[in-house]
Parts: sequence; C-alpha cells; structure tokens
Amino acid sequence: MAILVVGSVAFDSLETPSGKRERVLGGAATHFALAASFFTKVRVVGVVGEDFLPEHEAVLTSKGVDTIGIERAPGLSFHWTGSYVKDLNAADTLATDLNVFAAFEPKIPKSYLDSEYLFLANIDPVLQLRVRRQMPNVKMVAGDTMNYWIAAHRENLLKVLKELDVLLINDGEARMLSGESNGLLAAHEVMHMGPKALVVKHGEYGSTGYFTERIFPGPGLSRPFRAPTLPLAEVVDPTGAGDSFAGGFYGYIASQPALTPEVFRTAMFYGSVMGSFAVEQFGTERLQRTTRAEIDERFQHLREISHL
Amino acid sequence: MAILVVGSVAFDSLETPSGKRERVLGGAATHFALAASFFTKVRVVGVVGEDFLPEHEAVLTSKGVDTIGIERAPGLSFHWTGSYVKDLNAADTLATDLNVFAAFEPKIPKSYLDSEYLFLANIDPVLQLRVRRQMPNVKMVAGDTMNYWIAAHRENLLKVLKELDVLLINDGEARMLSGESNGLLAAHEVMHMGPKALVVKHGEYGSTGYFTERIFPGPGLSRPFRAPTLPLAEVVDPTGAGDSFAGGFYGYIASQPALTPEVFRTAMFYGSVMGSFAVEQFGTERLQRTTRAEIDERFQHLREISHL
Repeated sequence: MAILVVGSVAFDSLETPSGKRERVLGGAATHFALAASFFTKVRVVGVVGEDFLPEHEAVLTSKGVDTIGIERAPGLSFHWTGSYVKDLNAADTLATDLNVFAAFEPKIPKSYLDSEYLFLANIDPVLQLRVRRQMPNVKMVAGDTMNYWIAAHRENLLKVLKELDVLLINDGEARMLSGESNGLLAAHEVMHMGPKALVVKHGEYGSTGYFTERIFPGPGLSRPFRAPTLPLAEVVDPTGAGDSFAGGFYGYIASQPALTPEVFRTAMFYGSVMGSFAVEQFGTERLQRTTRAEIDERFQHLREISHL
Repeated sequence: MAILVVGSVAFDSLETPSGKRERVLGGAATHFALAASFFTKVRVVGVVGEDFLPEHEAVLTSKGVDTIGIERAPGLSFHWTGSYVKDLNAADTLATDLNVFAAFEPKIPKSYLDSEYLFLANIDPVLQLRVRRQMPNVKMVAGDTMNYWIAAHRENLLKVLKELDVLLINDGEARMLSGESNGLLAAHEVMHMGPKALVVKHGEYGSTGYFTERIFPGPGLSRPFRAPTLPLAEVVDPTGAGDSFAGGFYGYIASQPALTPEVFRTAMFYGSVMGSFAVEQFGTERLQRTTRAEIDERFQHLREISHL
C-alpha cells in the first residue's frame, strides 16, 4: 500500500574521509523514498528549485516513486553542506541554505489522498502537523525529527508526537527530548508524549524498538526489541542513513497486510539493511543501484549474524 | 572443566549517580570468577593484603571458587577509587593504590595445573605471559587488556596476543590497538596480531565476535556475530561489567564439550547476561545473589528481544 512521505528533497555538498562531492541529490524524503521504493509504492511531497533537473527526478521515478507532489519553485533547492572528516558518526554542518525550502508549504495532490501510510520526515513540526491534518484517514503515521526542533520548537513537536504511531529518532534525540540519560527510561518518557512505538537508532550499533500496549493490543508485547547492523568495512558517507533506515522499515510495514510484532521486528531488520546500503557510497549512489536480490541477501546475512 | 583465572582481587571505592560505596570487594579476577562460577569450576591466582578478610574470601568460596591461589602479602590490597558521576560509560579514576599488587608475581598452585581453560585478566602482559608459560597444556587461553598496556607496554602485549585463542576488549581498546577507527577493519587488524577470535564489547550496545578460520576450521565461518544487551532501567555501578561478561562467556565455553560456532555465540549471550547482573548493584552485590534460574530467564529474555 502507498506511503506518502513529506520532507526535504535537496542537494548535499559533502566531505568525508573517503572524499568530496558537490551538490549530490539528497534530502530526507529522497533517501526515504528510494529505500522504501523496494517494498511499496511511494509518493513524495516536497519542494525543489530550478536546479532540480530531469536527471534528478529520474533517480526517483526510475524506482517507481511518484514525484507529482514535488513542487517547483523559483530559485534554488535546499542545499546542505556538511563534513564528516573529524567524526564519521557526527556531521559537522558547514552551511544550510534553505532556499525554496524556507517558504515550503506542503500541498498534497488529490491523487495522493488515498495513501494509507504517512511518513513525516524531519521538517518543521508545524508543517508535519498540517500534513497530518490533511490526511485524517491514513492507517498509520510515522515520523522523524531532530535536535533543532526538539530544542527550539518543542511545543509544536509535542503536538506532532501525539499523532504518531511510530517515532524514529537517534539516541541523542531521545535523551534530549526526554531529559533522561538512561536509554530505557528515555524511551518510556518519549512514549508518554504520544507515540505508540518508538525506534531509537544507535548508529553503527543497531536500533531498539519500544512498544506501548496501544500498538499491539494484548499482554506481554511490551518488551523492547534489538536489531543489529551489518559490520561494514567502509562507511563512505553516513548522510541519509537514518532516512534510509526509516524507508526500509516503513516500506516493509506498508507492504504487509497488518502490523504485528513480527512485522515490526522484521521491519527493523530491513531498516538496518537499507541503512547499510545508503552509507556505502556518496548520496543516493548505492541505493540507486541496489537490487531486491541484494536486499534479501543482506537480510539473511543480518539474521545469521544475530541469531543463535 | 576448570578455568584458571589470574588477575586482580581488589577493593573499590566508587561513586556513581546512584550513590557511594567505600572499599567494596572488586577486581577483575573477582568479577570474572563470580560470573564464571555459575557455569564451571573456577580457580583464582592473585594477591591480597591483610585487609582481605574471611568474609571477603567467603564471597568467592561460597560460590565454589577455589581461592588457594590467592596469595596473602603484608600490607594492603589493591585499591581503586573511581567515579562515574560525569559519565556512566567512562570511569574517572581518582586513585590507583597498587599496594601488594605492585610486586605481584603469580604463583600457580600444583592443584591448579590440570586446569583446561586459562583466563588472563587485565594485568601486566609480562605476568600474563609468565602464567601462560606455566600452563603450556591448557585447551584454550582467553584474555583481556586495557589502554594502559596498549599504550605503554605494546611490545609485551603483542607477545601475549600471539598466545590467545580469544581476546576480549572494548571498542576504544580495539581502535587504540589497531590504529583503525572502523570497527570491522580494527578487528581484522587485531586478529592479525594473533588471537584466533576477538570479542569487542560495545558497552550498553552489546558486543561483536570476530573469527579467523583458525578457531573454527572450515569455510564460511568467518562472519562476525552480534550479541545484544538487555535494556536496563538502572545501571547502579558499571565496575566489573566487562569482567563479568568475560566470566559468563568463558564459563559457558568451559562447560561445553567443544568450541563450536554455536557455543561461541551462546557464550556471548551468557556474557551479556552476566554483565547485566553485575551493573545492577554496587561491586559484587548482585552477582552474589544471582541464581541459575535468573540467568536462564535473562538468557531467554535476551534471545526473545533479538530474534525474529
């Protein structure tokens, strides 16, 4: 079933220990859509500028991603400049040129209104909420956020959290949002803010899923779940790893008839798999040439290296 | 089958966010022996001072640990003072009083000579090697080390590494030893130094086992293995977590007829389980009152939260 994702479609200029790239296609919605496209139909709502060329759009459309919700605006696309030279685990933002993204007002095409899954990628919570309101009948809502919104737009973010079935954030964001340094207590605190389930990503160390009884009604289903990552010999560019994780995770869920604990756990493994591809080359290069056979192979690999 | 462990038997004065304790029983060999005692016979070689009283010895002997190899010397026992108030993941050493440990010369009682498993806990690599030489016929040798020996006693440490079947270290130590920041490459580099297998501990995020073909002869067995940890609502005192992991890991291996990939993987899970108990109270308090039933229950719990 179709996922509607709202988020950034952008260009990234990147420096990592593996090299430099100028203005490669990026953005949370792009990485998410590419990763999810292997599992289900994906529709994107975003905004780009005049520098977004047919070749960029083709990266998405060649995977069957619906791009009619990507609005064209006069000017340049969102452009992020970052470096991972000091630390592959922490991006050093050198410049954030919002450009056309500064006045982004998500507009949902009519043909998207029957989407059953909604993903609110990391954008202003006011916009996340506005999109949520326009899609009242979706079957499931998942979302992401970041330290900037947690620190400076908390009130608005708290409204979004009440609307979420699943929130996907990283360790630092969970700590910041909850004010708790212990991972388990932080997760419980965050779930009290609204989301029925929470996936906390630990970077190279995997992820943990936390559940309230509201997501899988019934007793005994509230234990966390740990998903591992694949050990990789080279991380070329971590940009988009979290969005690719979310795309694999949510894409798998949307491809299944119902959300069960088993589907959720399997989805976390697919999230790890898609994240592992994303970081192997710059930008979307690796996701573009990933095949379903490779995904299945890595899924089995991940299972093998974590199951007794 | 019996494990001989050589290492520190000490007193720790600790401060953590949960409180303070003065001079509680600690030391790598103590934590290791207690954790391993649930699985197999354990014999300790170490040295203590006049402050090591019958009540301290009883902590070990009540679990069936053989303490006749713990030498009594005039003076005080090794005393470590540390704080985790700033960061539960990184001990801040306030004082290291080696006392009788400064002149430690391991002496192996005759009754220990038939031990089939040897564990070289974190002590001077010169002493580790000397003990290894006195136990030429053991079936398996595992060991630990720390940043101090890696930095300042590298030559000696490299000699020890050539003798090891399994080295257990943490992420920081693997990076320091190898000069590699990537986890997988660091592991390969460390295994080139000698150990047939390597377990790298990631603190609250679990551990990864790496194997050369020398530990499980045969093709296709060289993929890493990821073991998770239990999410814990409170970490009272992380001291001894790594030694308790090693004790559970090696104790389980020593209890099995042969080292197979399945035994190694299961041992990593038991390592996690014993580490999870160790941190729940100060010093050895929690390990002392752990039961085999609790261990089995946590093992199942760990399996459940990590298997699809």
